[in-house]
Amino acid sequence: MNFRELVERNRTRRKFDQSKILDARILVDLVELTRFVPSGANKQPLKYAVTADPGLCAEIFPLLGWAAYLKDWNGPEEGERPTGYITIMLDKNIADAPGCDHGIASQTIMLGAVEKGLGGCIIATVNRKKLARILDLPDNLEILLVLALGVPAQKVVVESLPPDGDIKYWTGDDGNHHVPKRSLDELLVGCFPKE
Amino acid sequence: MNFRELVERNRTRRKFDQSKILDARILVDLVELTRFVPSGANKQPLKYAVTADPGLCAEIFPLLGWAAYLKDWNGPEEGERPTGYITIMLDKNIADAPGCDHGIASQTIMLGAVEKGLGGCIIATVNRKKLARILDLPDNLEILLVLALGVPAQKVVVESLPPDGDIKYWTGDDGNHHVPKRSLDELLVGCFPKE
Repeated sequence: MNFRELVERNRTRRKFDQSKILDARILVDLVELTRFVPSGANKQPLKYAVTADPGLCAEIFPLLGWAAYLKDWNGPEEGERPTGYITIMLDKNIADAPGCDHGIASQTIMLGAVEKGLGGCIIATVNRKKLARILDLPDNLEILLVLALGVPAQKVVVESLPPDGDIKYWTGDDGNHHVPKRSLDELLVGCFPKE
Repeated sequence: MNFRELVERNRTRRKFDQSKILDARILVDLVELTRFVPSGANKQPLKYAVTADPGLCAEIFPLLGWAAYLKDWNGPEEGERPTGYITIMLDKNIADAPGCDHGIASQTIMLGAVEKGLGGCIIATVNRKKLARILDLPDNLEILLVLALGVPAQKVVVESLPPDGDIKYWTGDDGNHHVPKRSLDELLVGCFPKE
């Protein structure tokens, strides 16, 4: 699989095969990848907690916001829920702000997960107070994101944007999740020399 | 090359073989990768400008801050400078803030560049006003980062942190660039179940 195939295969996943329990070691290996990613001023202020324990995963699940555009859907049903979580934190003893380090780390972890046949969702809507209590975090660790992971159980289809430019994703009658993505022409505002 | 090898090979590069002029098409292909990356609420608010034109690259170069920890070095000399730039912008008509989308996009572009034998540096210290003028940007586009790219011409070595925990990189007597990276033990603050 070349890199472009990996990037295209890395779709946001919100339904999983919950019978496929993950080994925490797989999640630790994904965190280890982040040792080698760029970090603003090389500060490396991010910390991680990994959770593959089914009981703890069940405690974390209700603390997460799922798919704001799907108004009639409050997240995956029992049986379709994530089987692992990686919580990404900022260590405020190291830096006041993460810059875009958490984006760099999240994408690296997600691409690594896809290579292993997993998939997931980067979640920023998190009940941080409760999650910090569950993970028993010290005050210097601020939760930035939770990556929900598992073996994907829903097909995701990339679509062109409709004529009105609406970027809201939807679930089709086919049961697939459809996600409109902007065209290259829309993203590229300058090219020198002109092609 | 598996994904971990790609991530490890992706070191921040600040010296290039300036004789190797890039084809703008390579940079456009890297931007195209970002069509398929996650984006907060799927807004996809980032825009890109690519520059492989040597004259324009020479105009952009002095607008960038290089390697704050190397006090006696103001950036690569003529002959070692980047041969391409990708400027990443936020389209404020789409979103007020980028979240960590620019980190996701930057790392994806950098990994794609490494697969093609290129390398580079994510630069946040940018004379945004002058660069916006050079690129003739409308007011709704806010420059977030500049990715400097080229064919690498310096070896980069990952090191363990010294006992005092200093994360500053340095250039060795060997001419190589040495970068201390935190250990997995330091990054991982929780693992459930315990390994």
